[in-house]
Amino acid sequence: MNHAAPDDAASRRTAAEREFVQAVEESIRDFLNRQRLTILDVSYEALPLVDAIEALCLGGKRMRALLAFWGWQAAGGAADSPEIVKAGAAIELFQSAALIHDDIIDHSDTRRGRPALHKAFESMHRDEHWELDPAQFGTMSGIIAGDMCLSFSEAKFAAVEVQPDAARHARRIFDLMRTEVMAGQYLDGLSEVVGIEDPDDALHRASTVIRFKSAKYSCEHPLTIGAALAGADQELLQRLREFGLPLGEAFQLRDDVLGVYGEPEVTGKPAGDDLREGKRTILIALAERGAEPEDVAFLETHLGDPTMDESTVNRLRDIIRASGALDEAESIISTTERQVSAALRRLNADDRITEALRSMASRALHRSS
Amino acid sequence: MNHAAPDDAASRRTAAEREFVQAVEESIRDFLNRQRLTILDVSYEALPLVDAIEALCLGGKRMRALLAFWGWQAAGGAADSPEIVKAGAAIELFQSAALIHDDIIDHSDTRRGRPALHKAFESMHRDEHWELDPAQFGTMSGIIAGDMCLSFSEAKFAAVEVQPDAARHARRIFDLMRTEVMAGQYLDGLSEVVGIEDPDDALHRASTVIRFKSAKYSCEHPLTIGAALAGADQELLQRLREFGLPLGEAFQLRDDVLGVYGEPEVTGKPAGDDLREGKRTILIALAERGAEPEDVAFLETHLGDPTMDESTVNRLRDIIRASGALDEAESIISTTERQVSAALRRLNADDRITEALRSMASRALHRSS
Repeated sequence: MNHAAPDDAASRRTAAEREFVQAVEESIRDFLNRQRLTILDVSYEALPLVDAIEALCLGGKRMRALLAFWGWQAAGGAADSPEIVKAGAAIELFQSAALIHDDIIDHSDTRRGRPALHKAFESMHRDEHWELDPAQFGTMSGIIAGDMCLSFSEAKFAAVEVQPDAARHARRIFDLMRTEVMAGQYLDGLSEVVGIEDPDDALHRASTVIRFKSAKYSCEHPLTIGAALAGADQELLQRLREFGLPLGEAFQLRDDVLGVYGEPEVTGKPAGDDLREGKRTILIALAERGAEPEDVAFLETHLGDPTMDESTVNRLRDIIRASGALDEAESIISTTERQVSAALRRLNADDRITEALRSMASRALHRSS
Repeated sequence: MNHAAPDDAASRRTAAEREFVQAVEESIRDFLNRQRLTILDVSYEALPLVDAIEALCLGGKRMRALLAFWGWQAAGGAADSPEIVKAGAAIELFQSAALIHDDIIDHSDTRRGRPALHKAFESMHRDEHWELDPAQFGTMSGIIAGDMCLSFSEAKFAAVEVQPDAARHARRIFDLMRTEVMAGQYLDGLSEVVGIEDPDDALHRASTVIRFKSAKYSCEHPLTIGAALAGADQELLQRLREFGLPLGEAFQLRDDVLGVYGEPEVTGKPAGDDLREGKRTILIALAERGAEPEDVAFLETHLGDPTMDESTVNRLRDIIRASGALDEAESIISTTERQVSAALRRLNADDRITEALRSMASRALHRSS
């Protein structure tokens, strides 16, 4: 969570956005409270699962819910409808579920400046002096909490009540989103183990991962889910995709840059976290294409070493910068931003919606966390 | 899978049941083939996820789908409706999703006589001589495949089209089922780490786990989901619950017995697998209540040791038998069977349905795998 920057995303939201985000958060809280009652019928001992999900869910930027909100309005949905609030909550719960399992898979210890969910359960095991292995208990709890959060997301989405045709259409996108994200996650993991590839193959693979694991899911799908729920036709959906997909790709590229060059106190993640995790991002693929052979060798030797020290992190940062990859990434972000603006003009929505989407895009691409 | 017994479950099904099971399997296959097309748009490299899900899904006994089928008919649903086929497929996909993550959590290497899904990916990593740790790649793939299968289950369930009130009602049970199973799984894991408890507390905890992780989900909920989809009223649902819950509890108790005394060539699991996994089952709780202190100490020392040798497995089997726990478990199963029969009479369904449910109950409680 961003505690530092004064130009933080939340403070630049419109009143309508702030009201919507508040409604989404209340909706998540109410839903989780109902789940607590269900779980109490099983055992109070299982309540920490819901508490941990809530702590994670209530920390996000709500970009995905907001995109659904504007997509919904672009298709003529009323700003004060409770149905888009439920859909926004479902999308945010899905995002939390993905983060919970991602952090286990990536061995990430922190998330938004707090311990990752599975690490929190690992600490609970230690604090309670329980038997067997704390890390295994953490992993078990994290797998189950992620499954629960994924189910919650689905339950919330199933509760959205709109016209049957619109519901079916939105459901198809929601289902597609999940399959694509998960396939993208697997490809991401695969790219970490397949070893050194031809630089162009590596770049192609990283682009595929970025598109499915992040870009479509973070921007295109939330926008089109919102629009489909309000009954958008294929033409409008296509225009929204032309805005959402490049925005999502540039958004993820910004994430790649922040994962290597971001300030820990702003990102809530240790410096150079992506380097220690060995993420095969577009930034890394660009660096390996542009760097001198001995620099590539150094990068390959150290990338993914969880015990990497500060000076190696700095050396890797220098290599990536010197390869031209950082400039290239920033240049792609700028080009994409122009593409996004052009798509927004073609969308031809009313001024309020256009302005909101323009502002969201700008926040997504120029953020520091 | 049961390849051995001539009185195997499938051969004792009625023609209607065989036809339904076939339709459920076709429905799963068709659905997975559509998912393959979606995944091909991402990358052919992610197809092994769907292949592995299919291999697992097409191996089950279909008890849950069949219970939904009979619940549906008990509430007046037509035997040849495609909607109950979809619901049955959704329930079976949910079961597969639960098994995939369970096997990771329990460190189970085998499932239905084949490698567990995460172990299959671990082997793939080894065979391909990929980099980094094969076990971590297996865990990553298993977490993602389980998530995918859970989403598939939801997508399938959301596609069931019945009267809106009936759909809403069935959805509530479906959502409840998932939350309960996951809370039960967590409690199960918790009971392995909290250490030696008072024997009555341990028995209470094991009963709670059995009820929510297994009994309700394996019998009560599939029955009532089927019935609710066909528009069952509260009274019918209550009668089905009175049949389904004790059946599910006895079903799980039979599982506990098979997990310790089952024949590997019939169960498809190594002998005494539950002992190596350290499962805190009702059978173990009964044994610890009835055994001599030195036997309890021996049990506590070895339970959950993954490297346990054959002679220790046999010694633990003798301890559990000598404690009276095995007789007690069989006696509870018999008592419950009478309770189940009485509930079936009170259900007052037509003969065909009563006979089918009686036969399913008998198969569930007297099986050898």
